[in-house]
Amino acid sequence: MQVKQLIAGIDIGGTKIAIALAAPDCRIVAKLSFPTRTQDGAHKIIERTLDELETLVNREQGELAAIGVGCAGPLDTERGVTLSPPNLPGWNEFPLVEIIKARFKVPVIFDNDANAAALAEHKFGAGRGFNNFVYLTISTGIGGGVIVDGKLVRGASGNAGEIGHTVVMANGISCGCGARGCLEAVCSGTGIARRARRRIVDGAASVMTTMVENVEQISAKTVAEAAIEGDRLAREIWDETVLYLSLGLGNIIVMLEPQAIILGGGVAMTGEQLLKPLREQIYSQIKILPASNIKILRAGLETESGVYGALALASIGQANTIETINT
Amino acid sequence: MQVKQLIAGIDIGGTKIAIALAAPDCRIVAKLSFPTRTQDGAHKIIERTLDELETLVNREQGELAAIGVGCAGPLDTERGVTLSPPNLPGWNEFPLVEIIKARFKVPVIFDNDANAAALAEHKFGAGRGFNNFVYLTISTGIGGGVIVDGKLVRGASGNAGEIGHTVVMANGISCGCGARGCLEAVCSGTGIARRARRRIVDGAASVMTTMVENVEQISAKTVAEAAIEGDRLAREIWDETVLYLSLGLGNIIVMLEPQAIILGGGVAMTGEQLLKPLREQIYSQIKILPASNIKILRAGLETESGVYGALALASIGQANTIETINT
Repeated sequence: MQVKQLIAGIDIGGTKIAIALAAPDCRIVAKLSFPTRTQDGAHKIIERTLDELETLVNREQGELAAIGVGCAGPLDTERGVTLSPPNLPGWNEFPLVEIIKARFKVPVIFDNDANAAALAEHKFGAGRGFNNFVYLTISTGIGGGVIVDGKLVRGASGNAGEIGHTVVMANGISCGCGARGCLEAVCSGTGIARRARRRIVDGAASVMTTMVENVEQISAKTVAEAAIEGDRLAREIWDETVLYLSLGLGNIIVMLEPQAIILGGGVAMTGEQLLKPLREQIYSQIKILPASNIKILRAGLETESGVYGALALASIGQANTIETINT
Repeated sequence: MQVKQLIAGIDIGGTKIAIALAAPDCRIVAKLSFPTRTQDGAHKIIERTLDELETLVNREQGELAAIGVGCAGPLDTERGVTLSPPNLPGWNEFPLVEIIKARFKVPVIFDNDANAAALAEHKFGAGRGFNNFVYLTISTGIGGGVIVDGKLVRGASGNAGEIGHTVVMANGISCGCGARGCLEAVCSGTGIARRARRRIVDGAASVMTTMVENVEQISAKTVAEAAIEGDRLAREIWDETVLYLSLGLGNIIVMLEPQAIILGGGVAMTGEQLLKPLREQIYSQIKILPASNIKILRAGLETESGVYGALALASIGQANTIETINT
């Protein structure tokens, strides 16, 4: 009996971890996800993840050819270690690639989750047909990936695309990265919720207080829903989000003039509620080049971008293996 | 007798026009420059320039293989026309490339002066050895060029690299482009001088008033010199310049993680007076990636970047010709 060749994608985020097994053509054959439980620490989390992967592989009676790992950054992709990702407390200098290789003995392709998702959008999603685009995921944090001439811009040490840490508010809100006024601090899901909660604690009236049991439960989703209801504070917070996002995206546009900007992550899943005012703001604000030719699109893979990203990485790993075998 | 193959570079600025003839390996064999005399109008200026070029080519008893043209932007490089460059009044929709091609019947490679200068730094200057860097010229305005994988990022319609129009000050100082808070509005030579003059008009004491006949004559150079003398206002203006430049450069760094940032133009010619505090600020401010590995360098070509940039463009044109001939 010939053993079925499989590739695996592992997407490690601050909130959840997703695993997918796929045929070499990236057709998914099995998939699962579970909460990250960051309090358990890096070693325990990764052991649990690899146990789950092994169970899946055995159940499919397949053999792994390559593993792609997308992980919350910053990372050192050269050495295969994580470097204190703000959303994965305690993962400093964690030798993720070494641990996975030791267990599965296959090529492991490792990149940050946003770079992986950018590749996934290029291969499977809204980025098909564009050779120059920027991908942004707006979720707990804000990550990004830059595609130039059909290839991911990796940067001098693999950390390019950290668009969430471009500064949009000089001397602004403190960011998890240690800097101030980063796009992520203002416009991530966490940033949106934090701004809303702060305003409510400061005494602003809002229907949001009736939508949750206590103020701490207010999320970006609460803000988005209340804004649709016409809540004044929620609308202000939303408008502010659009404004600062437009500054961050505008900075990308004048620097790289991409064909498209593709937005993924939970906050972008509000769809036109975010995209319509964002396009209007960006198109009217940028004067130096014809910005309205640049498409502002929702990601095609939605919540699946992480796992498809990891698979896109795995398929690079597999291609490299084949290349090595053939030479 | 075999005719000598030559390439030509033409650098068209608001103040002067420079022409260089070079061997195919870019070794310069002849060079000249003359004042632009913008009052003569685009047609007369370009005819004079092409006459000068023809004289040079005949004197060298050579044959042109390609012409590179660097010109103050904005341009439409696809159509080969200038689009109202602020420093070239009357050059709106001027069909520069068509006119040059009609006369010399060789490939003409046309790009804005900052993109050309970025290529020149890559080929001849401080960018040699770096395949990923960003070039910025800080002079009357702020222009830029982005080199990824050894190639210029041109953008969807040839307008990438407009780093001077990234926003570093939300709702800040009005910029010549029509937007607000652009890096150029704050940190260009014009921006630096404007901030100093405004503070003096508002009543700030400064040695700068004794260095010029009237406040309107204060330039970025005045500010730089007064800051060295220890003038308090000049130091404040300089520190502010460093701060906002560090935000703009920081945004490039987290987005692209280049190997180097190379600074040209008059303001950067202050050298370590600018570069030292700028490095310190950037290295301490960016937390998300190892920024201190990124070189912050002064351009290698200084005032020659225009003509070398035009030659770098010409050598692309020549390479393309060879490619076409071989296929």
